Amino acid sequence: SPLKIGLIPADGIGREVIPAAQRVLESLSGGPKFDFVHLDAGFEHFEKTGTALPQSTIDVLKNECQGALFGAVSSPSHKVAGYSSPIVALRKHLDLYANVRPVASVASPAFPNQKVLDMLIIRENTECLYIKSERQEVDPATGLKVAYADRKISEYASKRAGTMAFNMALTRQQLREQKPLEKRIWKNKPRVTIVHKSNVMSVTDGLWRETVRAVKESNPEKYGGVDMEEQLVDSMVYRMFREPEAFDVVVAPNLYGDIISDGAAALVGSLGVVPSANVGDNFVMGEPVHGSAPDIAGKGIANPIAAIRSAGLLLEHLGHTAHALKMYDAVDAVLAEGSILTPDLGGSASTNQVVDAVLKHL
Amino acid sequence: SPLKIGLIPADGIGREVIPAAQRVLESLSGGPKFDFVHLDAGFEHFEKTGTALPQSTIDVLKNECQGALFGAVSSPSHKVAGYSSPIVALRKHLDLYANVRPVASVASPAFPNQKVLDMLIIRENTECLYIKSERQEVDPATGLKVAYADRKISEYASKRAGTMAFNMALTRQQLREQKPLEKRIWKNKPRVTIVHKSNVMSVTDGLWRETVRAVKESNPEKYGGVDMEEQLVDSMVYRMFREPEAFDVVVAPNLYGDIISDGAAALVGSLGVVPSANVGDNFVMGEPVHGSAPDIAGKGIANPIAAIRSAGLLLEHLGHTAHALKMYDAVDAVLAEGSILTPDLGGSASTNQVVDAVLKHL
Ligand SMILES: CC(C)[C@H](C(=O)O)[C@@H](O)C(=O)O
Ligand SMILES: CC(C)[C@H](C(=O)O)[C@@H](O)C(=O)O
Repeated sequence: SPLKIGLIPADGIGREVIPAAQRVLESLSGGPKFDFVHLDAGFEHFEKTGTALPQSTIDVLKNECQGALFGAVSSPSHKVAGYSSPIVALRKHLDLYANVRPVASVASPAFPNQKVLDMLIIRENTECLYIKSERQEVDPATGLKVAYADRKISEYASKRAGTMAFNMALTRQQLREQKPLEKRIWKNKPRVTIVHKSNVMSVTDGLWRETVRAVKESNPEKYGGVDMEEQLVDSMVYRMFREPEAFDVVVAPNLYGDIISDGAAALVGSLGVVPSANVGDNFVMGEPVHGSAPDIAGKGIANPIAAIRSAGLLLEHLGHTAHALKMYDAVDAVLAEGSILTPDLGGSASTNQVVDAVLKHL
Repeated sequence: SPLKIGLIPADGIGREVIPAAQRVLESLSGGPKFDFVHLDAGFEHFEKTGTALPQSTIDVLKNECQGALFGAVSSPSHKVAGYSSPIVALRKHLDLYANVRPVASVASPAFPNQKVLDMLIIRENTECLYIKSERQEVDPATGLKVAYADRKISEYASKRAGTMAFNMALTRQQLREQKPLEKRIWKNKPRVTIVHKSNVMSVTDGLWRETVRAVKESNPEKYGGVDMEEQLVDSMVYRMFREPEAFDVVVAPNLYGDIISDGAAALVGSLGVVPSANVGDNFVMGEPVHGSAPDIAGKGIANPIAAIRSAGLLLEHLGHTAHALKMYDAVDAVLAEGSILTPDLGGSASTNQVVDAVLKHL
């Protein structure tokens, strides 16, 4: 039976890159069959209807779909009463507890001074400051406002994210071993780098750190071959820019993971090429890391690569790894050729021309 | 009467770079006179005495000193009962509400592929997650641990940090105008970039954003000539690496500021050259952005440039700008020459040789 996949383009260039990724999925020969269903969400939907995430979207995803592709959501530049980010809500509703963000360099004339790296960021996806538990008070003495947010770190969520990190380190190792040695960027033992700031947040980040460490320590048989190291989040950003080749799998609480993955994207040329998958035990949602890019929306020049790779991640996490690898290879071939690229990569091709080029290599 | 300055080397290379900076201050001809007082703090002090920040250090600083120079503090790699970072505590005790972190490129053979930038990061220095209000519970249903931290953002602190940012934008403009045009890196109108994540934390970062915006909006006469823009913290890190030349003054809540300043340091070659000043209304404490570097401590090869520049910032914020500029110029001259550099910059000079070279240019 076909895979039922929800398509949620949402705002801006999401409406261009999601159809692009859909075309690539539909063209996979010998691959799984798809039954796509189009679903609403986003800031523009909020402006029209008063809700950014209709209950029907949640219901269809939960009850009918195995996975989804999400486009991008616009953030209002001002405070809008009643509006709340649908992507954060979807991650929570579907219990997509790990945000998996691979960032790797691909040899391409588009990236002449590119650093060489092959990193996978696992971002805890359900808590930290993203629980949105906030309140505002007025200091009676001064009449001035004071606001508080709760940052939540649980053993439960930390363990799930940590386990995903160690498992992905092993999976990556297996996939690497299928490649010829000279094509492997990461050449060391698998490694998990735990990001935290426990020198300041000794309780919350202390719990995070200990729980993730315990994943390895409590299962030496399975994870004994995976190195484990730690980085304070500030040094992580520093080191990532100085020696990005030093990282394999990086696991971080939600907000740090958000920041690190945008930073890593800067190292491989463009946010327009970096994919992610929001992964739960029973559902996967692909999502390009880039935003809705209102400045170029509607022009047909958005880079579809992040969305296509996100569709690949979707397949990979639904168990169709071989077809995912085909998609990645086709994208890499287009980048390596370097003649058909969108303007963010210095080219002048349209979204559709890039998709055509990818299809040629499939 | 001389300036009374507390010297707090604390841990690791702090004990090498603080005496180095002291030598430079003492050699300033025609400059202010100094009365230095040596004060204890740090993780090593904690291990010896059970306290990381003796009350006597706080008292001397508060009651006798106009300013201080802080070295670096080691973070224990494991949880240590009763230990808490002395630098965070000092900032709070002395009400040093803004952490001023200039990051600028200097032409030097040590930095062949360096980006060109001239950025000043103003980091709110008293609240956010650094209030260290944390607690741990056990979920009775599962027996698993759950930890919470409070993130505090107040109108009071946001306004002080924001005001510092707009004032520094004007001060930088004045200093720039004293330089010949071709020596100015920033060539646009002064600009303040407000960093936040109000698309997720609409209450806390919403308050931060509005309060900082109001600094300019409520005083168009004074700040009308300063451009104001906003960046979400994740895009900020992305853009900082893609086009660091686009930033003049950047103002951020505590934790974002911590991360951004380490990231910016990666762009100018080494953490070993990036200074900071913790600034309050009645006290200034210079502090290199780097850590205690246990791997090279005691070898006499720590880069003293960040500490020397931090001593310059100390003078600048105590009103001795002309002498601060002399110190910066001497450091820049050593970097431009590029023959006497510590190993972190690819050289083989010792800490003392770099200080000697700086003194020659004073
Ligand atoms: C749009 C925003 C809420 C989101 C996030 O912070 O998670 C985005 O930055 C991302 O990385 O997916
Ligand atoms: C040592 C640590 C507590 C400190 C901080 O996070 O403020 C350091 O990273 C800094 O930037 O001064």
